[in-house]
Amino acid sequence: MTSRRLRAPIVLPADPACSVLRDAVVDIGADGRITHCGPAAEAPALEGALVTDLPGILLPGLINAHAHSPMVLLRGMGGELPLLRWLREIIWPAEAKLRAEDVRAGMLLGSVEMLRHGVTTSAEMYFHGEQVAEAVLTTGGRTLIGAPIMDLPGLDWLAMLRDIDAWIDRDGRVYGPGDRVEVTYGPHSAYTLPEKALRLTAEAAAERDALVQIHVAEAPDEDVKQRTEHGSVPLLLEKVGMLDNRVLAAHTVHLSDVDIALFAKYGVGTAHCPGSNSKLASGIARLTDLRAASVPVGLGTDGPASNDDLDLWEEIQLATMLARLSTQDSTALTAADALLLATRGGAEALGRPDIGALEPGRWADLVHIDVDEPAFATGLDAPDGQLLSNLVWAAGSRRVRDVWVAGEQVVGGGESTRVDRAAAQAEVGRIAARLRG
Amino acid sequence: MTSRRLRAPIVLPADPACSVLRDAVVDIGADGRITHCGPAAEAPALEGALVTDLPGILLPGLINAHAHSPMVLLRGMGGELPLLRWLREIIWPAEAKLRAEDVRAGMLLGSVEMLRHGVTTSAEMYFHGEQVAEAVLTTGGRTLIGAPIMDLPGLDWLAMLRDIDAWIDRDGRVYGPGDRVEVTYGPHSAYTLPEKALRLTAEAAAERDALVQIHVAEAPDEDVKQRTEHGSVPLLLEKVGMLDNRVLAAHTVHLSDVDIALFAKYGVGTAHCPGSNSKLASGIARLTDLRAASVPVGLGTDGPASNDDLDLWEEIQLATMLARLSTQDSTALTAADALLLATRGGAEALGRPDIGALEPGRWADLVHIDVDEPAFATGLDAPDGQLLSNLVWAAGSRRVRDVWVAGEQVVGGGESTRVDRAAAQAEVGRIAARLRG
Repeated sequence: MTSRRLRAPIVLPADPACSVLRDAVVDIGADGRITHCGPAAEAPALEGALVTDLPGILLPGLINAHAHSPMVLLRGMGGELPLLRWLREIIWPAEAKLRAEDVRAGMLLGSVEMLRHGVTTSAEMYFHGEQVAEAVLTTGGRTLIGAPIMDLPGLDWLAMLRDIDAWIDRDGRVYGPGDRVEVTYGPHSAYTLPEKALRLTAEAAAERDALVQIHVAEAPDEDVKQRTEHGSVPLLLEKVGMLDNRVLAAHTVHLSDVDIALFAKYGVGTAHCPGSNSKLASGIARLTDLRAASVPVGLGTDGPASNDDLDLWEEIQLATMLARLSTQDSTALTAADALLLATRGGAEALGRPDIGALEPGRWADLVHIDVDEPAFATGLDAPDGQLLSNLVWAAGSRRVRDVWVAGEQVVGGGESTRVDRAAAQAEVGRIAARLRG
Repeated sequence: MTSRRLRAPIVLPADPACSVLRDAVVDIGADGRITHCGPAAEAPALEGALVTDLPGILLPGLINAHAHSPMVLLRGMGGELPLLRWLREIIWPAEAKLRAEDVRAGMLLGSVEMLRHGVTTSAEMYFHGEQVAEAVLTTGGRTLIGAPIMDLPGLDWLAMLRDIDAWIDRDGRVYGPGDRVEVTYGPHSAYTLPEKALRLTAEAAAERDALVQIHVAEAPDEDVKQRTEHGSVPLLLEKVGMLDNRVLAAHTVHLSDVDIALFAKYGVGTAHCPGSNSKLASGIARLTDLRAASVPVGLGTDGPASNDDLDLWEEIQLATMLARLSTQDSTALTAADALLLATRGGAEALGRPDIGALEPGRWADLVHIDVDEPAFATGLDAPDGQLLSNLVWAAGSRRVRDVWVAGEQVVGGGESTRVDRAAAQAEVGRIAARLRG
């Protein structure tokens, strides 16, 4: 790759102030990392760089901090049933029929779907992690794949743990062009694993400086035993040494003040999944309290079997709405706040300072929004707050036009540059038909 | 127009059971009304009819039961401020600068935006009602325009009321090709009008069999005086005789059991606006209680200055999420239930049995959804519930491709067949710039 400059009338670098830069550039080095971002008038001279003028809004690729994307294979199945019946009668029997190549096909389409929505990175938890990684290397996205560890009939949690160790020891914790794959540990939850498994996972991850992804306090009644014995799941995780690791706690709907203080103390990242938590009636996470305590918070879609798509813009909107409803304060979360959750915040929650903002040294993961849309009719010269509102509340994923990952364009004109979407859809259709049959 | 037949692999007639018809037809008479809807195998012979095969999903046009669409002119302005400061410092000063032709330009773009989202009918409340009607006659949409009646400094509520009388007496309550415009009374609310104004409005509307649109119980503290003096706004409306009319009560967030019983007794329609009520932190309406009491419920976007778009699919999704959160029951509202709210339910709430479903005699207001999308990758032969979930939760407005109103195609390939969208956007841009200046 040669070095390049992208110039646009509006650039949102996702700095902590959520600045809106007018007529600005993003410079990308030959290695796919950002070398500069700022107003065009102050940009450094670039020799031999390819300059592209874009008509819309440039911002960092969004980060989906919690997903089970291969579940596009099961999208919408049995959604009318209560949660436990849905899992037992529909989802688990269907998942039992899934082969490794099915998971790969599901992740391929899921990754294409996310890229088309401007989601460049997703933190995944799903079986057949190496297939998930392969699919993302094919689409050109970026993933932190949490290979699962569970203690259920037919599963051997220790073998699952050791498989992750071996994977990292073989391929490295981070690999692929542009560091596209990070291998992480995915212990499902404290209520599906014995204490010993949590402790050994913490040790293995610490040895490898690896991220641990785990579901925490999603539903009100899932962890009664753990709460009775240890006070709360976060207290149990502290006890087994897990919080000394990089940890991404998904959902975290039912946290006490003590739990939140513990997360703040250890810098535990959380993935807020308002869509899933609403559709499954799990509850409303304490987003404003988590933010006030400086706990790193990102946004997640959860799996498309329940949510039912991988459009993180919907989570941006929902996060705001639920924060305002639950605090009865219509200023509880601004458009800028919400946009930062989906970019910079996601990177912080995942412990990834190399993505999530347009800053020198970070990977050039970028989204270009087409502004030929009623959402932007009041003009790009509107005040910053209005422009951000137009983007976040009215445009959303509708007009994502171009997407780059590590400086490589992976979506152009709204379509994948690498994957035949029709073929990916057809393959998912064949698998879904087999699951039904 | 000649008579026509549309045939599609999936047709959703929005009957009370929310049936999913496979390989079905919708027949449209020369007058723009539906003559037949059912499986292709059982369809009557049609002589000389134009037959069109469509590849996707056909359903009734959605009905936006509460909107202030010309506010696309103010979209996103000052959205970071608390409600009252936002109104006093931003919205009211900007609205004071609006001319009649501005409102027309705003409604033109708002109507195009709605049609592109598959929303064929909207119930509007805004100043310069005749301009709103003209704009909708230009786009080819359908509207129930509630010309406002308010008692604020500089406004004469009695003159506003008599203007509506005169409009109906001159043009008729329903007019335009395909009955596209219905003139309705729009008394803003019980807390912005004296009791006498409510009583006279009820009388004038009753004389003309006209719909009354009114905001009811949106925010917790707006109607303290009325609640103190009359028990509740619904009780006051009963007292002045308004509930004997066709009434559409918008928002209805803070209702007592007595209020709900009253609405059920009189058949008062309600417009549920979950997006606006969330963003403004107004609260969560008692949707499941309203439905249990058989109160007619439709969905509304409210104005795009606060919500911030006119995409009713988002309200379908939000209505479900909030119903499930507030009842802690993940089965509280199914995809089918939610889709009916936005179609048949909206028609019932507005007292319009001529729209909202694909049944003989109703206007042929139709939407065709393109299914070439990851949302539908699991296949059109999936079970009914799964297909409805795919449509409602994962596809949404993204793939609305063609739209008909009274049998006339007004959107083709996602764009208005009648209005130059770029020109409509540019005109809104010019007005927005003037409002800022």
